[in-house]
Amino acid sequence: MKLKIGVMGHAGSDLPEKGAKLAFELGKAIAEQDAVLITGGCPGYPFEAAKGAASQGGLVIGISPGLSLWEHVNKYHSPTEHHDVLIFTGSGLMGREVVNIRSSDMVVIVGGKSGTLGEFAIAYDEGKLIGILMGTGGITTEIKHLVRVIQKDTGAKLIYDRDPRRLIRRLWQYYHREHYKHPSCFLNDRLSPKNHRGGPESITE
Amino acid sequence: MKLKIGVMGHAGSDLPEKGAKLAFELGKAIAEQDAVLITGGCPGYPFEAAKGAASQGGLVIGISPGLSLWEHVNKYHSPTEHHDVLIFTGSGLMGREVVNIRSSDMVVIVGGKSGTLGEFAIAYDEGKLIGILMGTGGITTEIKHLVRVIQKDTGAKLIYDRDPRRLIRRLWQYYHREHYKHPSCFLNDRLSPKNHRGGPESITE
Amino acid sequence: MKLKIGVMGHAGSDLPEKGAKLAFELGKAIAEQDAVLITGGCPGYPFEAAKGAASQGGLVIGISPGLSLWEHVNKYHSPTEHHDVLIFTGSGLMGREVVNIRSSDMVVIVGGKSGTLGEFAIAYDEGKLIGILMGTGGITTEIKHLVRVIQKDTGAKLIYDRDPRRLIRRLWQYYHREHYKHPSCFLNDRLSPKNHRGGPESITE
Amino acid sequence: MKLKIGVMGHAGSDLPEKGAKLAFELGKAIAEQDAVLITGGCPGYPFEAAKGAASQGGLVIGISPGLSLWEHVNKYHSPTEHHDVLIFTGSGLMGREVVNIRSSDMVVIVGGKSGTLGEFAIAYDEGKLIGILMGTGGITTEIKHLVRVIQKDTGAKLIYDRDPRRLIRRLWQYYHREHYKHPSCFLNDRLSPKNHRGGPESITE
Repeated sequence: MKLKIGVMGHAGSDLPEKGAKLAFELGKAIAEQDAVLITGGCPGYPFEAAKGAASQGGLVIGISPGLSLWEHVNKYHSPTEHHDVLIFTGSGLMGREVVNIRSSDMVVIVGGKSGTLGEFAIAYDEGKLIGILMGTGGITTEIKHLVRVIQKDTGAKLIYDRDPRRLIRRLWQYYHREHYKHPSCFLNDRLSPKNHRGGPESITE
Repeated sequence: MKLKIGVMGHAGSDLPEKGAKLAFELGKAIAEQDAVLITGGCPGYPFEAAKGAASQGGLVIGISPGLSLWEHVNKYHSPTEHHDVLIFTGSGLMGREVVNIRSSDMVVIVGGKSGTLGEFAIAYDEGKLIGILMGTGGITTEIKHLVRVIQKDTGAKLIYDRDPRRLIRRLWQYYHREHYKHPSCFLNDRLSPKNHRGGPESITE
Repeated sequence: MKLKIGVMGHAGSDLPEKGAKLAFELGKAIAEQDAVLITGGCPGYPFEAAKGAASQGGLVIGISPGLSLWEHVNKYHSPTEHHDVLIFTGSGLMGREVVNIRSSDMVVIVGGKSGTLGEFAIAYDEGKLIGILMGTGGITTEIKHLVRVIQKDTGAKLIYDRDPRRLIRRLWQYYHREHYKHPSCFLNDRLSPKNHRGGPESITE
Repeated sequence: MKLKIGVMGHAGSDLPEKGAKLAFELGKAIAEQDAVLITGGCPGYPFEAAKGAASQGGLVIGISPGLSLWEHVNKYHSPTEHHDVLIFTGSGLMGREVVNIRSSDMVVIVGGKSGTLGEFAIAYDEGKLIGILMGTGGITTEIKHLVRVIQKDTGAKLIYDRDPRRLIRRLWQYYHREHYKHPSCFLNDRLSPKNHRGGPESITE
């Protein structure tokens, strides 16, 4: 199976032009790397990434908060374009993010506010490989500091980069070299720190 | 977006040869109709359908019971071949079926035991378009009788056929002629009988 | 912790008087046995059981389909009376039933249509101890036949009785004598038939 | 129904004595206020709160990450003492937190690392009334700063206090005076900023 890369970030319609362009390039890079793009099926940065991936013929899957297409469109005001498949979890904005993160082999954070902060925290806590697209503002500026406050080795690995294409390449390489051995905390029957060992979480930059 | 067709049925490894062949043909027909196949990511009839769809280059999405690929393989003994994308719900065998059914525009029942009975009941209760692949045994022989006992118009529509290709064609036609107007019970803000009206549920045969 | 007994059944407002009285007595018997009543937080038979349990000061927990109290009341038209706590899963009518069943040490089926059929099938498939309150019509009349069709030993155990109080007593005794050893299929790290062995599922009557 | 107060925080076994005592007092205060304590059914600060609430005869509900009691104990190494009822979501550590937060009328953050950061972010994003028990370290020291970075009015309201009893009293008063009017973002059919208006989120201190 192809690698799956989740893109999470600000889902509002008020995107700064620079950030929107970076998110579009991120989606293109994901498709060019022949990976599947996973989004929350929402507007904003993830939707820009969907456009970018679709422009290269990449496969785009949206994990919707709605119970149905009707709720997706009318309750959550979410788009259907540029996605190949929408999965309806019905579990609301943050509930579906948990499925989104678990289904992604790695996630990339682009800008974002409280929802994205939650997504970062979930991904970190579940030991994911996480890319931070720097230069997109919002909570991306706080993550290095937060990781120092958290003081917890969950097995998560963070890679920061301002260049979407280079970020995807670095994530790709790190995944295949190392992270595939312990892609999340759900690795065996007993959840324990020993499951995701490999030295302290180190921030590559 | 392409239509999504969920295939549900016996997930054991002890498939009768005839049923396995019918499920494979069902998957082929789904891909040839240019629809996306949704499965529970499990062995058995749904896996035969995945093989069939993949043999025609169709897109196959598996909604896994596991929290991760590790659980998918080691806890649920489930395959990864012939699927393009696995979504990890972590909600167990029956929990993921709810997501599976909601994400499918229509579902097809192939053979099956208690799990499949639950899937049929969920699809019926949520007002789905449901195909029954006759000749595959298990609970498919009981459905007509059960519908009479249930005496509840949920908006569900059932189409029975012994020929996988014809079944898909009939489902496809009925969906585009009628069922797309009320594809499930989650159609507006208030769940009520009025939402899925259109005369009593009638069984086409 | 106290035992938890889930009550599932027809959730409409058109209850036959006899069935409603049986469901009320069932709730009373649950409270008198000092067990916690788990319902789907819905109207109908489960609500009658909630009234019965509450009349004896029993603890009643409702697992709601809604994302919030607002949705519980306005989207799902569900009651709040006679419940001590409502848990908001947001996973819709059938999604919340999966949580409901897993959280119950045993479940009792009272009347019911397609939703209840799904609940029975989920409980059966997950190897639960299941009581059938005979005399309440709906799908309860079909269960013996369905179990024969299903031909699958999941570890589930069925006890049929027309008397609510005797049914609860028999379930209680069987649980403490035998079923507590294998209360569901989620008993160890690997889901396999060996986990719920103990001879073929036998129907006590 | 009684108010439900969720307590979230560090779930490790390495609690500083002062923090453990504060969490115990918090649980006592919740029970004395005649509210129901909701926890994630985990060790750590929430478990200390459960002990405190149970010491006063308060009702304690744990929302478990496991699919069953077996998983609760053996996979998630979680306690069963001092809880009246465990609900088995099977949705893993972060998945169950979403249910936990939605089911709580207000939540209190005690110490905590990445998991708690996620819980705070979810509660903030869903517009909850949130208490921060100051003096318990971890991410509680970062929340004021994060709220400034987030710059998003979700309807959430934060109250900070070092005294567990005073914090519960202030939360209680604010809930009954104001927050009950818009307890979360799931207030009507359309999720929109207008749903949780009432002036900018203001931090009471």
